[in-house]
Amino acid sequence: MKIVVSKSELQKGVSTVSKAVPVRTTIPILECIKIDASEKEIKLIATDTQFGIETVIDGTIEERGIIALNARFFESVVNKLKDSDVTIETDERYGTTITCDNIKLQMNGQSGEEFTPLPIVPKKNPIEISQMSLGKIIRQTIFSISDNEERKIMTGEQFKTEDDLLTVVSLDGHRISIRKLRLADPAPENDVVISGKTLKEISKIISDKTDEKVKIYITDVPEEKKNEMTQYISFDFDKTTVVATLLPGNFFGVEHMIVDEYATKVKVDKKSLLDCIDRSTLFVKEGDKKPIIMNITDGNMELMISSMLGSMDENLMIEKEGEDVKIAFNPKFFIDALRAIDDDTVNLYFINSKSPCSIKDDTGTYLYMILPVNF
Amino acid sequence: MKIVVSKSELQKGVSTVSKAVPVRTTIPILECIKIDASEKEIKLIATDTQFGIETVIDGTIEERGIIALNARFFESVVNKLKDSDVTIETDERYGTTITCDNIKLQMNGQSGEEFTPLPIVPKKNPIEISQMSLGKIIRQTIFSISDNEERKIMTGEQFKTEDDLLTVVSLDGHRISIRKLRLADPAPENDVVISGKTLKEISKIISDKTDEKVKIYITDVPEEKKNEMTQYISFDFDKTTVVATLLPGNFFGVEHMIVDEYATKVKVDKKSLLDCIDRSTLFVKEGDKKPIIMNITDGNMELMISSMLGSMDENLMIEKEGEDVKIAFNPKFFIDALRAIDDDTVNLYFINSKSPCSIKDDTGTYLYMILPVNF
Repeated sequence: MKIVVSKSELQKGVSTVSKAVPVRTTIPILECIKIDASEKEIKLIATDTQFGIETVIDGTIEERGIIALNARFFESVVNKLKDSDVTIETDERYGTTITCDNIKLQMNGQSGEEFTPLPIVPKKNPIEISQMSLGKIIRQTIFSISDNEERKIMTGEQFKTEDDLLTVVSLDGHRISIRKLRLADPAPENDVVISGKTLKEISKIISDKTDEKVKIYITDVPEEKKNEMTQYISFDFDKTTVVATLLPGNFFGVEHMIVDEYATKVKVDKKSLLDCIDRSTLFVKEGDKKPIIMNITDGNMELMISSMLGSMDENLMIEKEGEDVKIAFNPKFFIDALRAIDDDTVNLYFINSKSPCSIKDDTGTYLYMILPVNF
Repeated sequence: MKIVVSKSELQKGVSTVSKAVPVRTTIPILECIKIDASEKEIKLIATDTQFGIETVIDGTIEERGIIALNARFFESVVNKLKDSDVTIETDERYGTTITCDNIKLQMNGQSGEEFTPLPIVPKKNPIEISQMSLGKIIRQTIFSISDNEERKIMTGEQFKTEDDLLTVVSLDGHRISIRKLRLADPAPENDVVISGKTLKEISKIISDKTDEKVKIYITDVPEEKKNEMTQYISFDFDKTTVVATLLPGNFFGVEHMIVDEYATKVKVDKKSLLDCIDRSTLFVKEGDKKPIIMNITDGNMELMISSMLGSMDENLMIEKEGEDVKIAFNPKFFIDALRAIDDDTVNLYFINSKSPCSIKDDTGTYLYMILPVNF
């Protein structure tokens, strides 16, 4: 193989695919990035078998071929090259020579043929969403997935499409996050569970600032075969494809957990509430489970926390409708939800001191439900 | 004690003195910042007994007193307060109440009376240097101190003043760094060794960008008592004083180690040489001692490294006077020295492949000597 690519193009490509290289693996070849110049394009590929990334980079193929290079080492080498054209040339024993201006580097590669290929997801019936919107909706829900691997389905998020409506749901047994987004175009009907790891990596690769679309494809699996066949999802954007396995099984029907009645409605400035609850965590030591107590009366919310370290007592102005209520929460759960909300003021809905608090807007864009704790 | 200070002033002061709080200590009171409002000013003080910082903050003393508060906790609390006036009030059992706008926090303090006082350094005959110059000369020499605690004197730097000349020297057995600086005003004659820890902390606190002076004071100790009496140094700037113990003993007479003769002189572009040697470290694994080999011939320097990971071979254009030479170095030592030099081109002087290389300018501002290794 012999290819010539610009350093910047190579660096961008390597940086993209290296996110799929597993930190620990028992399959040494997966520590590599595969450079596939066996056809008309130069492709970089990395995978951990559950999650893979492929990207096409611009360049010239002078001799077709394939090579696999240790990802961490290759990435550090590429980062330190000069801003010039880079030639990568391999010999029949996978010895690899990288030349760039007056620099000549040599390293050992491996046969790229042994590299696990990425699963193929047919490119039909895409869900289309802008990179920015996808990144945002992930960030606004990802914090409430569970890290309990014994209930695998809770370590992912439900992505459900129906007409032009995308609904994303995550829950961890203490709280539920629901976000709804109107898509520009109607999407095919889907109801899948994407693992948290896949979503975190996707949100790192896609651009935060661009309106460019991501096309999401999902492999067709008949309902009755859902438990035996692996279902795949692919995200296509720029010149990159990310392929991942979906979590098997059906997600929880959260509709039944949502209650619209309430005894108390509170309207409060979001930043003041967030800053106050954030401050209260000063008094919570790692692993400690001190709740923050909210005492809600007419026009006032008193927030209190006390621990071995000391205590905090703070009053916020609110608008209140309905009953007084005194209720306690894990402050972290409230902070996560409030940080995911862009609005300047938020509405909190309470039933009583034993029932979850709902934070939601009037248009149904978001609903964050948080279970209270005893105090 | 009852004081009122602005949050920003308190935050700045706490951030400054907290750098003296020891990470680990067997003396619990040293984990605290002492607030001393027993006289006319509000002082914040922290010390690890070898190194202490005191700073004066603006504010109003409503009731005189002293309190010691856990530094890490107090700092995190102060950082999360609102940008408003902060009142700190203590009761007779050292209970401390912090109020700021609608926030009320309580924590337990300790008697500030038990706090080790900082040693007193008489304010006479200062060495005056700008904060920027002091920070710079520390950064340009600190990398070649030794971390071998068994030869304590090598863990510090020699600071020597004579008329208006400040000379700073550090060495670790493999290399020597010497920097000379002309001061604006003549300074009293001094020849002391300041510990690396003190210098690192000082360079973090002083401003990188200001021409404002630091006044350095050193306690007088008669030559014959140097081994029994602890000698102190203080750095005064802004409203802050840093006091530290000096390392006992005399520094090495490096003048005898410097040789002015050379067989080869090389003039080379600094950035090209630095980038190349930096790239070569890609092939050096942690703990591995692969040297970089320089093969110097007319107009050309070939740089080579090879290890289990692969190899590098690179050629740089140089101007050469004198003999050809092939010599090898620990690449890290060259990188450290070159990074400390601002000049665009550097002059390297070689005697032979077994003798140290000197990197120096024509005006004697700096001299970096590096011992070669076998190859």
